[in-house]
Amino acid sequence: MAFSVAVCGLGNIGQYTLEAVESAPDCRCLGVIRRRESLGKSPLALRGIPDFASMADLVAASGRPDAVIVCSPSRQVPSTASAFLKEGFCTVDSFDIHTRMTEVVGTLDEAAKAGNAVAITAAGWDPGTDSVVRALFEAMVPSGTSFTNFGRGRSMGHSVAARAIPGVADATSITIPLGGGRHSRLVYVVLEEGASLDTVKAAIKADPYFASDPLEVRQVSKEEMPFVADASHGVLLERVGASGLTSNQHLTFDMRINNPALTAQVLVSCARAAVRMKAEGCVSSYTLIDIPPVKLLPGERMANVARLV
Amino acid sequence: MAFSVAVCGLGNIGQYTLEAVESAPDCRCLGVIRRRESLGKSPLALRGIPDFASMADLVAASGRPDAVIVCSPSRQVPSTASAFLKEGFCTVDSFDIHTRMTEVVGTLDEAAKAGNAVAITAAGWDPGTDSVVRALFEAMVPSGTSFTNFGRGRSMGHSVAARAIPGVADATSITIPLGGGRHSRLVYVVLEEGASLDTVKAAIKADPYFASDPLEVRQVSKEEMPFVADASHGVLLERVGASGLTSNQHLTFDMRINNPALTAQVLVSCARAAVRMKAEGCVSSYTLIDIPPVKLLPGERMANVARLV
Repeated sequence: MAFSVAVCGLGNIGQYTLEAVESAPDCRCLGVIRRRESLGKSPLALRGIPDFASMADLVAASGRPDAVIVCSPSRQVPSTASAFLKEGFCTVDSFDIHTRMTEVVGTLDEAAKAGNAVAITAAGWDPGTDSVVRALFEAMVPSGTSFTNFGRGRSMGHSVAARAIPGVADATSITIPLGGGRHSRLVYVVLEEGASLDTVKAAIKADPYFASDPLEVRQVSKEEMPFVADASHGVLLERVGASGLTSNQHLTFDMRINNPALTAQVLVSCARAAVRMKAEGCVSSYTLIDIPPVKLLPGERMANVARLV
Repeated sequence: MAFSVAVCGLGNIGQYTLEAVESAPDCRCLGVIRRRESLGKSPLALRGIPDFASMADLVAASGRPDAVIVCSPSRQVPSTASAFLKEGFCTVDSFDIHTRMTEVVGTLDEAAKAGNAVAITAAGWDPGTDSVVRALFEAMVPSGTSFTNFGRGRSMGHSVAARAIPGVADATSITIPLGGGRHSRLVYVVLEEGASLDTVKAAIKADPYFASDPLEVRQVSKEEMPFVADASHGVLLERVGASGLTSNQHLTFDMRINNPALTAQVLVSCARAAVRMKAEGCVSSYTLIDIPPVKLLPGERMANVARLV
């Protein structure tokens, strides 16, 4: 099966998504949808893919894509994806606000059914592939304790939250695992002219994103910031418990990755699954734990069963 | 959803399966099917569950189970499961001969469709949950190198193969990982009266199960054997490669487990999935990479999405 996608948004994730599409053997990108005022800009990031100000323009020039990969900021994802779904386009997104998951699955499900399309949401690594590992851990070891230990790496959500603090010109928040699923935060800040580091520190500490974790704030110059803001990240998932009545079962999943590159790759793998599920008439909204893993991979099912099972 | 099972076979896996059913919040066991001459024997292993010489006897006494967990030796699995499927019983098994996987999936698919039932095969940890991890690894990092490193632990397949060598009264084969997916074998043997250790060593080395790996054979007495034959096992799955065009993505999955306890637990989790898929009319045969992970868990889908995604 070959399939086509459109990419909506050309931020960090959008750019890596174009690379993941380029390297996939069965996928091509028909175009990028972005703000009209950005059209034609950043040609290197576009990697030769045409850009359009709307889906209508993209379809008129390149035809209908099998799926849209929504690379908007998380808060915009539900409305952006819903609009595409209602027009009959399958969507994939990496919405990452854990506390709103069932609400968003419900919203997208309604839109998917209205448009006879398939939505896959939370298609990144956490939520996303980590969610699959957590589900698998519980299927193997139903009673016990799991920990998700993030980092060391830059948290996009915490960096954005810190940037919104008055007096902060720029910020990078590094997540440092302390074990047992607990984390400390190391926040590098560039201060605005005249801002006080102590006031900013107190405001960050009071923010709900940071309130419950040990916090260190370090001031850096605008010129120093790029040197502490790279894309390395990782996670250690652990579960210790019992299979049946047998205790002392130990499971761990550990990865060290480029964060946006992995998110973009999971988006493309999920676009493949969405197109397949649409072809099977499974019109609904899904998260990664709702999807048969074999559907994420290029190639025929039985060839993958023979190779991987 | 609550569901019922029958367990066919009361060997090592069958006994642990009864424990896994006992600890599951939503599953009960209607009975064990075993050879007529064994009926009533090993009451502790039966854990209060009635035993029967046939499915007809079990159904007459306890009613129809929603699924049959087939705990026969691997070679007997395809015919045993097919017979149950044709009679309309969903089946789950931990068939583990990797090279026959597509053949057995095909055989069970035919039987499942004939009986309007669902089959899940290769439902252990390798093949099984490791297969899911391998598929997930490739969805995250499509180009690169994977290694499956087994052990240190007892290989049931290799132990059985060694026991079949002339002159061997009993054998335990320990798998030792050498890295890069390679393994050495340490085989403890109890010799039959008059057998030569050198001859036995040569015969083991010539067996296709052992021919390609470094081998050490150690003679032990019948009394010593139990002290080297425990159920500890483990695996380290590794993948290093690229997501999209970005290299240096490192993924590892490491577990240290009681081998039959985990296999039995995966069987029970898959029985749950089989019953759900039957209710949805998805009559076919599946492996673990064909199954949405959320279906393996007790509880409602959206509650698990909220908790795990």
